[in-house]
This record gives sequence, structure tokens and C-alpha cells, in this order.
Amino acid sequence: MSVCHAYAAASADAPLAPWSFERREPGANDIRIDIAYCGVCHSDLHTARGEWGGTLYPCVPGHEIVGKVTAIGSNVTSFKVGDLAGVGCLVDSCRSCESCQEGEEQYCSNGMTGTYNGGPDGVNTYGGYSDHIVVDAAYALHIKAGQNLAAVAPLLCAGITTYSPLSHWKVGPGQRVGVVGLGGLGHMAVKIAKAMGAHVVLFTTSEGKRTDALRLGADEVVISKDREQMKAQANSLHFILNTVAASHNLDPLIACLRRDGTMCLVGAPEHPHPSPQVFGLIMHRRSIAGSLIGGIRETQQMLDFCAKHGITADIEMIRADEINTAYERMLKGDVKYRFVMDMATLQEGAQ
Amino acid sequence: MSVCHAYAAASADAPLAPWSFERREPGANDIRIDIAYCGVCHSDLHTARGEWGGTLYPCVPGHEIVGKVTAIGSNVTSFKVGDLAGVGCLVDSCRSCESCQEGEEQYCSNGMTGTYNGGPDGVNTYGGYSDHIVVDAAYALHIKAGQNLAAVAPLLCAGITTYSPLSHWKVGPGQRVGVVGLGGLGHMAVKIAKAMGAHVVLFTTSEGKRTDALRLGADEVVISKDREQMKAQANSLHFILNTVAASHNLDPLIACLRRDGTMCLVGAPEHPHPSPQVFGLIMHRRSIAGSLIGGIRETQQMLDFCAKHGITADIEMIRADEINTAYERMLKGDVKYRFVMDMATLQEGAQ
Repeated sequence: MSVCHAYAAASADAPLAPWSFERREPGANDIRIDIAYCGVCHSDLHTARGEWGGTLYPCVPGHEIVGKVTAIGSNVTSFKVGDLAGVGCLVDSCRSCESCQEGEEQYCSNGMTGTYNGGPDGVNTYGGYSDHIVVDAAYALHIKAGQNLAAVAPLLCAGITTYSPLSHWKVGPGQRVGVVGLGGLGHMAVKIAKAMGAHVVLFTTSEGKRTDALRLGADEVVISKDREQMKAQANSLHFILNTVAASHNLDPLIACLRRDGTMCLVGAPEHPHPSPQVFGLIMHRRSIAGSLIGGIRETQQMLDFCAKHGITADIEMIRADEINTAYERMLKGDVKYRFVMDMATLQEGAQ
Repeated sequence: MSVCHAYAAASADAPLAPWSFERREPGANDIRIDIAYCGVCHSDLHTARGEWGGTLYPCVPGHEIVGKVTAIGSNVTSFKVGDLAGVGCLVDSCRSCESCQEGEEQYCSNGMTGTYNGGPDGVNTYGGYSDHIVVDAAYALHIKAGQNLAAVAPLLCAGITTYSPLSHWKVGPGQRVGVVGLGGLGHMAVKIAKAMGAHVVLFTTSEGKRTDALRLGADEVVISKDREQMKAQANSLHFILNTVAASHNLDPLIACLRRDGTMCLVGAPEHPHPSPQVFGLIMHRRSIAGSLIGGIRETQQMLDFCAKHGITADIEMIRADEINTAYERMLKGDVKYRFVMDMATLQEGAQ
């Protein structure tokens, strides 16, 4: 066992605070990663505060993990000590169900093991707000050197959550693709859809995001509250990736889809969206879908794709002891576009 | 011009009554069909009563039309006098937009011309509750001889509305397919999905429909109000065709879909369905879609498919002067499973 320094929530209403626990020694199939950076995802906050129910305490959030391999098990051939490695939202799954066999471990029929707050038989797992992690090599990712490692971290959740549906629905050249919302997920979606060759239309309620959206790669910016601007997009989009979790009217967006177009939702609203009009689906055989992160193989593809296209997240670095303030700022949407925790600052707080 | 005897609604609150008007003589590309039978669709009632708005009066409903060709235009080579022919929900479209070019005229960008209540520039069209119709041969269908012609009529709307999504989403052998509701559309969906080779699960709120569902071809019948029965179907269906227009909770049905499964809605509710939970879509990358009738080429495929598999609708024949009573019975769901009007009875009423 090795002592692991971390930031944890002791209960739903406690702020995150330094905490130590023990990680297992690497087994034959495991690697140990010393964590350099960990991205801060909205899910971390929801889970730490028990807002989705089922949180196991103490809760150590964090599933956008990058660092360096410092030990490998005897069976491991895919990593060597000194490699850069990443861990995303899942660290295990049943490996035998149809989804696992097809490399879609995120949809494991027997329940994937979350990087934090989710193990088999109710055993807690502890995430990336910590100085190291031990993980089965089959669930770790390779990170190419020469990138801004801190800015790579958010790819492990925000990146794959947007890449997976864009890839699944075959976004590419010659297509007009909508992205709804310009936050942690949305800003990744704009970059990735653009790199895939699509004409990208960013929908936002905020005129203030126009300049940034264009800088990030959007070809057009549409203020979704403006009826005339929305009307100009009617029946024009092959696919929409909707990253907005707040409850909103889906109908004006659905009306922008071409025949056979799909709007995929990756945010789950706390309060339901107004019920979408069925006529809007029937009239052009449109679909509303959902998508959850991505599988391990696909996550590696995404990391390689992003490395090739020079894509990382736009981040704001924080110290570990700034995490509670960062949560408050996230709630106000005051982040461009992802907080990333510098784990070198953890030791100080954990002393 | 030729005098056409019909049943028409003079206004939203008038019962249907005998009425006469003039049809055009067949142009070079037209055929004239003397109508033998016309199916009675729920849309007829909604339109006649102005419940969807935009009804032009007098309104002659009817878009499940079968009969015999009695005249052809000089350019027509696809039909000859004496052929059996059918007309479905549309009699024209722009022929130049992408959807028309791809044989999906029902999604015509410039607006298809409905068989009744829909022509370009606000000109009214009159449907199949009449003794003959004149239609462009390109929008007429071939009906194979040797079938029960009256029972073929409902294929022109109820048949294609269910065949099209079942075909589009590639239903076939090895698949478990759900059909929700056993009415005019649902009973066709069961027959067609079964003939396509799928294992068919019929969802109904009514235990009383079990025997009929099994007779029509369903492999299983699930009472959708029964939680245990619903639970047994969880994550098991490749596709669901939902034919129920009444507002209902979609979530328990969505939960029956496998990963990447789609539930397609073909009924538009007067009051919205409760908003579906986004988590149910996200967790298994499921979709909710809509579909509208079908294109002309696909309608011919459907008619040929049904002829080959001996599929027709289960019908109850009515006289023309029974149409108002039939509407009342339809509203109570008191029909197994489609009323079809015998047009030979029209002359008596129209005298």
C-alpha cells in the first residue's frame, strides 16, 4: 500500500479539504501514475455535493488525469516507466458484455467502475484530486509528449464526451454541424468538429461569446434567443451537439436540423427540458439522442486525433487549495474554459 | 371536367354530408381512377373537424384510395386502363428539392401536395371519400390483383407509415422490435415487422388486446402498465415503433431499448408527452425519432412487400353514409382495425 495525498469531500455539505488514504500497490496488470494535473469537471462538483445521489464519502473527485508512469506490473507491456499516461472517467468494467467486447465500456451492461465514487459491490474509488493513482493498464491512455500536459487533461472527459458523438454520427467535411453552448464541453466540441472538417455553427445565448467562439474555430455564431438568426439556420444542420445541461427549449434547435439530422444531448438537466414537439421530429425524420463519454479505444483515438491537430483545452490553472473557490466560479460559468488543478501544489496543502 | 360525388365537411362543426364538385379531365401525365374503396384514417377526422388548424372547406377527406384506372393521359406509359391503382397521402411535390430527388417526397422542402386539403398556393385538393380521382401517374401506385382490395386500401397510409420507419431503421431477422399500441397503425406494424423477420413485442395498456396481438403476429405481449413485465424487457429491443398519439410517459419504453436503439414516434399527441428523461438517452446512446408516411418509391415497395407476404389490413367495411358514426367509434377506439368505405354505396347518398 502507498499513502496517497488528496483533496476530498467528507460529506455533501463539507468543502473539499486535504485527506490521505492508501492506494494498492500495482498488481500484475496495473500501472502507477504520479498525477501532474487533473481537470475539474462539473460532475466532480455534483458528486462531491451529493446532488446526483449515491455519493460515497469521503469523495475524492477527478477524472481528467494526466501524469507520468512510475511503476508497472509484471504483465504490463503497453506502458513503461517514464511514459506519459492518462486516466479518464472509468477504470474498469466487466469486460465480457456485448458493450465491453465492442470497446464501448462506458455502456457496460454490468456497470463500469467509475474513476471515483464507483466500484463493484459498493467499494469506493478515489479519483484524480490526488498525487497518484494505480490503474489497470487496459484502462489507461497514452499521451503523446510535446503537448501542454495541463491542457491535455480535460480531453479525458470534456474531449471524449464531445469527440465520441461527433465521431459516432460521422461528422466530417461537407457537413454543417451545430454546437450548443460554449463551456467546458462546448469549446472542445467546436475545436474537434472543426478539425473533423465540418462547418461549425455555435449557438449561444450570450453575444459576449461571439469573439471567443470564432477564435476557437466556429464558422458562424448564432444567438439562440434571436428568432431571425434561428430562422436563417432552419433545416440546415446535419448534426447538433448540445452541451447545455440547463433546462431549455429544444424545439428551435430541432428546427435547424435537416432531414434525418440528429441532435445529441450530452448534458443531463436537473429540471427536465420542456417536452420537445413530436411534429418537429416527424416532419423531417429528425432524432434526439444522448451520448455518454466514450470507450477506452475511442478515447485513445481522440487523444491521438487531438495531438495530431494540435488540440488541447483552454484552461485556467488552479492550486489544489483553490478548488472550493473554483467550484463557486464554475457555478457562475466564470471559467474559460476548464479549471485544471496543478498537483504539484497538493503536497503543500496535505502536509 | 367531370362531376365527382363525394362526402364533405362544410365546416369544422358540420357532419360529413353528400357533396358534388368537378374534377379536372386527365392531363397528359394524369390517370383517372374510379375509387372502389377508401380507408378512414384518424387524420381525416382531425382535418375535417379543423383540429390541426388550416383546414380548407369544403373538406373531402380520404387518402387510402384504391380503385381501377378508367382513363390515362397521352404521356402515361406506367398504367393502362383497367389496371388496379392506389393513391396515398400525397399527389404532388416540387420534384426538384433534395428530398424529392431522393424519392422522399413526403419531406419535400417546398411542401408536398396532400391528397386532400393541400395544394400549392392555397388551392384545395379533394380526397378519396369520392367516386373518382384524377392524379399524376407519377404519384399513383400499382396494386397487384388477387388481393382483398378493400383491405389493401389502408396500406396507403397506415401501411406505409409503419413500413417506412421499420425499413429505414433496417428491422430484420435477429432483432427484437417493439410496437406500441394496437390500433390502425399498430396492427399494421405488427404484421409488417413480423414479415420482416423480427421478433415482435407488442406493448399495450389493455390486456384485452393480447389474443388479437398474438393472432396478428406478435411474439410477446407486454402490458405497459405492469412494472414487472416492463422490467423484463429492459435493454432488450433494437427498435421500437410507437404508434400511440395520446400523451404518455415515454421513459419506461425508452428503458426497453438496447444500446444505440431508437424509438420512432409516428403519432403526434394533441397534448405533449411528459418530457423524456435525458439520462435515459445518454446512458445507452438511445434515440427518439419521428417519421412521416413514406415516399412514392417506398410506398410501391411496401405494396409489393405486403402482396408478397399476404399482408392486408384487418378492416370493417362501412357505407358512405355511416362515416359520421364511424368517426365517433374511432374516437372511442371501437374499430378493429380500420374502417374502409365502400364507394359503391356513395351513389345512393349523393343522388
